[in-house]
This record gives sequence, C-alpha cells and structure tokens, in this order.
Amino acid sequence: MIRRQQINDLLKSTAFNTEVKVMGWVKTFRNNQFIALNDGSCMANIQVVVDFNNTPENLLKRITTGAAITVEGILVESLGKGQTVEIKASKVEILGDSDAEKYPLQPKKHSLEFLREIAHLRFRTNTFNAVFKVRHALAFAIHQFYNERGFVYMHTPVITASDAEGAGEMFRVTTLDFDHTPRTEDGKVDFSADFFGRSTNLTVSGQLEGELAATAFGKIYTFGPTFRAENSNTTRHLAEFWMIEPEVAFADLENNMELAEDMMKYVISYAKDHCAEELAFLNNRLLEEEKQKPQNERSELSLLEKLDFCLNNDFQRLTYTEAIDILKASKPNQKKQFKYLIEGWGADLQSEHERYLVEKHFKKPVILTDYPKDIKSFYMRLNDDGKTVAAMDILFPGIGEMIGGSQREERLDVLTKRMEEMGVPQDELWWYLDTRRFGTVPHAGFGLGFERLVLFVTGMTNIRDVIAFPRFPKSAEF
Amino acid sequence: MIRRQQINDLLKSTAFNTEVKVMGWVKTFRNNQFIALNDGSCMANIQVVVDFNNTPENLLKRITTGAAITVEGILVESLGKGQTVEIKASKVEILGDSDAEKYPLQPKKHSLEFLREIAHLRFRTNTFNAVFKVRHALAFAIHQFYNERGFVYMHTPVITASDAEGAGEMFRVTTLDFDHTPRTEDGKVDFSADFFGRSTNLTVSGQLEGELAATAFGKIYTFGPTFRAENSNTTRHLAEFWMIEPEVAFADLENNMELAEDMMKYVISYAKDHCAEELAFLNNRLLEEEKQKPQNERSELSLLEKLDFCLNNDFQRLTYTEAIDILKASKPNQKKQFKYLIEGWGADLQSEHERYLVEKHFKKPVILTDYPKDIKSFYMRLNDDGKTVAAMDILFPGIGEMIGGSQREERLDVLTKRMEEMGVPQDELWWYLDTRRFGTVPHAGFGLGFERLVLFVTGMTNIRDVIAFPRFPKSAEF
Repeated sequence: MIRRQQINDLLKSTAFNTEVKVMGWVKTFRNNQFIALNDGSCMANIQVVVDFNNTPENLLKRITTGAAITVEGILVESLGKGQTVEIKASKVEILGDSDAEKYPLQPKKHSLEFLREIAHLRFRTNTFNAVFKVRHALAFAIHQFYNERGFVYMHTPVITASDAEGAGEMFRVTTLDFDHTPRTEDGKVDFSADFFGRSTNLTVSGQLEGELAATAFGKIYTFGPTFRAENSNTTRHLAEFWMIEPEVAFADLENNMELAEDMMKYVISYAKDHCAEELAFLNNRLLEEEKQKPQNERSELSLLEKLDFCLNNDFQRLTYTEAIDILKASKPNQKKQFKYLIEGWGADLQSEHERYLVEKHFKKPVILTDYPKDIKSFYMRLNDDGKTVAAMDILFPGIGEMIGGSQREERLDVLTKRMEEMGVPQDELWWYLDTRRFGTVPHAGFGLGFERLVLFVTGMTNIRDVIAFPRFPKSAEF
Repeated sequence: MIRRQQINDLLKSTAFNTEVKVMGWVKTFRNNQFIALNDGSCMANIQVVVDFNNTPENLLKRITTGAAITVEGILVESLGKGQTVEIKASKVEILGDSDAEKYPLQPKKHSLEFLREIAHLRFRTNTFNAVFKVRHALAFAIHQFYNERGFVYMHTPVITASDAEGAGEMFRVTTLDFDHTPRTEDGKVDFSADFFGRSTNLTVSGQLEGELAATAFGKIYTFGPTFRAENSNTTRHLAEFWMIEPEVAFADLENNMELAEDMMKYVISYAKDHCAEELAFLNNRLLEEEKQKPQNERSELSLLEKLDFCLNNDFQRLTYTEAIDILKASKPNQKKQFKYLIEGWGADLQSEHERYLVEKHFKKPVILTDYPKDIKSFYMRLNDDGKTVAAMDILFPGIGEMIGGSQREERLDVLTKRMEEMGVPQDELWWYLDTRRFGTVPHAGFGLGFERLVLFVTGMTNIRDVIAFPRFPKSAEF
C-alpha cells in the first residue's frame, strides 16, 4: 500500500524535524537545489531542498518541470520568503519523467486560448486548479444547502421522449443506422425500431419531471446535465452544461424569490469560507487581466468586492413593466446607444438592457418579475391581469441571466388553454397534466445554470474555462 | 407569500394548543372526521380532526384520497394510537380536487408492476417515498464522504467523441437528418457535418477523463449519468444510470480497496443514521414480500441485519485464482448444479459463481482481485506474472458486482502494447496517453453503480424501482 503525506497538510504542519514522504509533480527546479513540488491538494507548492552534492547528476537532470517524483526527507522550518516549512530531502526518486522539450506546460504564463487546446493538462496550472476547486466547493454547497432544508435530490432522465420542454433545440439519441434506416410503409423513419421504441432526445430541462416529484415530496431539486443543440459560439453558451432546478409545492413567486436569493448568498458565502486562497488568487488574476483593458472598460469592483456586494445587498425586485419604464427613460435609450431600442411594453429584453439595469442603474443583482406571457413558457402561471405571467429572471453583474423561474400554472383549464395557444401537444404530456388533475397545488421553481454561477464566482470570462471538457459546435475533444 | 408548517416538524412538536397551518394531500378520510394528511416531508401522516357538524357537506365530499387541502387549526395532544399530536381543524380549504373514480392510487396495496406504469404518481406511496428518501441520503453521503477527504468533484462529459471507453454498446448523439444525410464523396455518412464535426456518443464511463483530473488534483470523483445501449431486459440493468467514479493519484490496488470499503461503510452507516424510519418501513416491506416465497428461497438475514452485517465485517479479500479453486471444489460445481461449470483458470465468473462466493461461502461482501488480463480492460495494470491485472470487483449479497475497479497501467510502453493487442486506437486517445508521457504516476480508481447501491440499501429487487423514470429497451416514458 502506498503511504504518503499530502502537501496541504504539511504546509500547515509544525511537526519540525520529523520524517516525511511526499509525491507530486515538479513545478520548477532552481539551481539544481530547490524543487517547487505540487501534488494537487492545494495551489501552493512545497519547497524541497535537494542535497545536490550527494545526488547523482543523471537524477538531477531528470527533475524537470512536469516530472513526477517521490521525496523522502525531514520537515524543517523554512527561512525562505513566503513559506514556513520546507523538506530537506534525503531521497528523491523519479516516478515519471517529463521531457522538457515536449511538455506543453512551461513555467511561464500561457494564454487561456492555448490552455483550452490542452484541456487535459490545464488542471495542472494555478488558474485551473483554483477554478475547479471553487467549482467543487460550489457544487458541494448546493447539495448542502438543499439537504439542510429537507429537499430531495432527484435524478431526472437525461434521455427523454418529450420534445415539449420548450427550452431550445435538442440532440437526437438513437441506435438506428443511417445506412440501413428502418422505414414505415409511407417511407418515414420508423422510430418504433429505435432503442426506446420511439424518437428520443437529450433533455433540455428536468423541470417537468421535477414538478412530478415536488407534488409528492413537497420540495425537490435536480442537479444534472442538460443540453442545447444550438449553434451558439459565444463566451456564455455550451452545448452540454449542468443545471440546478429546485421545485417546491405550496409555494408562490414570493417564496421562489426568497429561496433563490437565499441559495445564491449561501453558496457564495460557502465559497468565500472554503476557498479563500483560490479566490484571492483569482481576484489578482482578474486585476491583472483588467489592466490590459482601457480604463473605461474595467470593472468598478474587484472580484472579491463583487462577491461581498452580492452578499451584503438585497437583490432588487421589480416587475418587467417597471423595468421597461426605467429603460425607456434611460440615457442609452434616449441617445439611441442601445442596439435594440426600447419603444414599448412587450419587447423581449436583450443582454444590453439587462446589463444596464444591473450594472448601471441598480448596481446589484436584480430580480425581474411578471413578464408578458407571450415571451415566456406555457407552464408559467397566468397573472390576474391576463397579460403577464408569474415569471422571474435573476440578473447578475457581468453575467446577465443567472436564474430563470416561475410559479407554475396549477389550474388545469388555464394550463390546457395556454398549451393549445402555444401548440404544445397535450397527449404527449398526459403525465404532466395528471398532477393538475389529482390534487393540484400552487408550486414554483427555477433553474440555475451551474457554469454561469462558476463564471461569476471565479471571475473567469469564458464559460469554456469553467467546465472540464467543454462541448460546443464542432468541438467534442477529450 | 405562502406560509405553512411542515408535517415532519409538527409531528415532533410539543407546542400544544398553538395555531398551525398545514398543506398536503389526503391519504384517507375516515368517518367524515379523521383525515390522514401527508405533505411529503416524511412518510408519516398527521391526523386532522374535522368538526363535521360545522363543515358544509359539499366540502366534506371533496375531501377524497389524493385531494390537496389547506388546514388551519390547533395542534393538540393525540389520544389515538401511534401518534402523539393531531390537528383540531378550524378551517379546511380545497386546493385541488381528486376524482376518487379516476385517481389511480387507491388506499390499498398496489403491485410494483402497476406502480411502474404510473411512475409520475408512485412517489406518493409509502414505499416510493421511503426509497427516494434513502436514495437522496445515499447521494448526499457520497458527496460528503469525498468532500471530507479532499476529493474534487468533476463533471466529466456526457457527450463523447471517443468510442474506446470499452464498457459497452453506445448511443449515438446527432443532429443529422435521416432523410437528408450528408454524405462524403465515397458515399459514407459525413459526420464532419454533424453538430460536433465528428461522430459522437453518450458516455459509458467518465474514468478516462477522471484520470486526467486525478493526475493534477491528486484525488477526484465523478457522480453523473452513464449509458449502455444494450438490449438487457433484466432486473439489474438500465440504459441510463448514475455512476460514482473516484480516481486517486499515488495509489495502488490496496489503497483502492481501502477507499472502496471505507466509502461503502460510510454511506450505509449514513443512511442508517438519517433514514431510520424509512429503513424500518422497507425492512418490514421486505419481510412481507419474502413471506410469499417458499422457505428455502427466503433471505437468511432481514434488510437491517444485512446492512449491519456489511458494517460490522471486513470485506473478504481474495484473488481470482483463489476464487477459482474454491469454486472448482464447491458442491454446486461438483454436483453440476452451476449452469456454467468452472473447469479451470481463465473462465469469466458468472453471476451464479459470484453469488455462491458471497452468499454461501463467505457470507459477506467479497473483493476479488487480480483477474486474468484477457477478461479485463486495456487500462488495468499488468501484474508481474504477465497473466493477471491489478483489477478488483466488489461483490455484494443479492446484488453481485457492486463496484469494479483497478490500479491503472501507468507505464506508457506496457499500456500501448496492451492497446495494440486489444485493438484500442491510440491516436483517438492521445490525451489519455499524454498523462503517461508527462509525469506518469501510479494511480487507481473504481466505479460504483449508484442504482445498485440503492437496491442493496432499500432491499428493493428491481432496479427500475430505485430510479425515478427508468430507461430500458422500448421504454422512455415520462
């Protein structure tokens, strides 16, 4: 059995002059004497001091950036700057060599674009170590938040026969052969011969199934992958991404807003408490990156200030109608600086409008509610005015829409009327309608795009940098 | 904002003679007076006593099984058997009716087969309430176990361009049209025109990507959906299921066995601590079910005894070679009762052999190691004997294989030789081989089928009853 100590534990240790054994990857090797060693347990390296007079030269040559080694030695107090302990090595062994000529990660700054090409190795950099530690912490915080509150975690299906979820273009899942496609008598593809006996797709949302569970358990959440087959090559979209979708019975839009705000504050606060080192690093990274920009494009707040700002302020709540009034009267609308000018009620809000409200007007997260029914989904609850629905979008600085949700239409007659108007097939969703037939209750829920949350908390700017192996048009490498 | 109290809280309350407000679904209504009300927060119902003299008859008629109601009243000490509190209702309101003629869930025992047909409503039964609460607890326990130990949770991709994972048949993911399929000049399907610019499938395992992350973070785990396009209509197989795959750098097969056994004991113990009520119910359910069987087919241990047995015993570790010797000499082999007789070394073990070892011979979980290389995957580490690999399968009573894992082949030359022998394309897995080129380290990991774990802990016998909406050949309903 392999026994070794982790570097994160040793860096906190005061057990000086004891024997230790560590394994890790060489970050740098200076003067044939000082190894900066990292084992992934934390961003920081431990310094290993090699007795170069008593170490064979052919071994010293193999201590290169990226090489994996075992070090045995004595933990001693360090006199070096920025570290309290180091290891005086008595034995160094090579576990795995790394050809310095060929290893793509050199001890210098690489561009994020270059690192995206070598996503299988980028975890070994400080930036991606920090990003994925924060991602982990946020995922755990979400589970802990809902678990503490008695929500049941549901795994809703990834493969779905329904194409009525209405959130976007879908990927087909099939075992049929393009060359010998089974056909019905009238020449159509015979999906009854497909694996599931029907046409199937990858889910765009677990919400509809989540509602089934919420109307039994009271409170549920999902946390799983969702998919969009849309040809969006942007810094905000992925073809495969993870979503959190809570759904609560006996809840209205007010309850929904409260839950969403509580959750966002809880997870951001958790990340601050558990990833102080990583967030400090990412804060500095962003400051350095912003220095490349002209003064007027830089953020007013640093990453850490932005996180605190969300924690310390109530999210601004206002209706779509109020937002339209603000936007109509705004300077960029008056001066025709918006690409899409706001001329009246009913317009769908664009990213530029959302950013104006959040970043310029209110300068904090904003919850917009009660949108026109015509620009929202069939399952959102119709308000008494007959024109708007009990929807909510939560907008975050730099991100735009972080969360979309609503109170659901629980009245069978109103729901089926909306489905008819919007062309949603009722026979396919018989099970969804059953929840309105048998003991229907007011209920509400929302969806949080997990990668957008990670973007916000890490201060990264491209969504492809916060998921391990991003999937987007023309790219499914690794 | 809707404000209500949860029934699980009230059942533990001693705040007698205070006003309360609950919402829930009617389980039963006896004598126009006693409502058993459930809101999903726990399996138990709260008794609501209706003042039937002062309640309009048309309201009483609508208090049917499955109806959703709001109750306001006074919490009082109960004189009834099996409950300490009840609610003396001052006001009952109907939230949603339930037509007693049409509601499929009657207050009687339904078969599991029938409930599978109405999977959207079966969560409302005691059995499925218990199963999914236990499933939730197990999922949370897994996250907590790995989080406490410093593992990083990785979301490995669901859509993969690799078909070299080698764990089984795959589903195609595509946006190409069967009717207007783009073709190359030589008439083949032109996957360069597909969404990802190449042929893509649903993943069968996140392991290969997990290894990339483990050789940077040291310790990672995945917990995500995986897929098999196999035509298996059994009580043990699903086309879509969830898997947990930890991967640890600087670890060998011994470390791997230790981690797996620790994890299994941790999560079973967590479920016992957090789902006592649900497990007691499921224990009785299984006892009742077993009574239908002939004496000699009944389990020797009850569900709770089986869980304790796993907690209180070390898993039996032995090599494949030792297992073959035991099986060869066993009574069912001598008496030719096995369907597949064990005649010598090299045979793949069948379920009947695994069950004999676990249930008859050792009577506890068994870890089999060091299988013949020819029946295992290319990435498993070749032992010094040149014939076996450092694999491990963990076998559980009633389930068979619960966990499969191995130490990974970290030596580039040995790995590429195995890939050649087994016809695994090396160019497609260039990124996987890179981890062996640059600082390769000994590492190990395993996969746990989450639904098999839930089966074991809940004592259910069909895997379709432990996932919300099971996917299997010819079925993708809901």
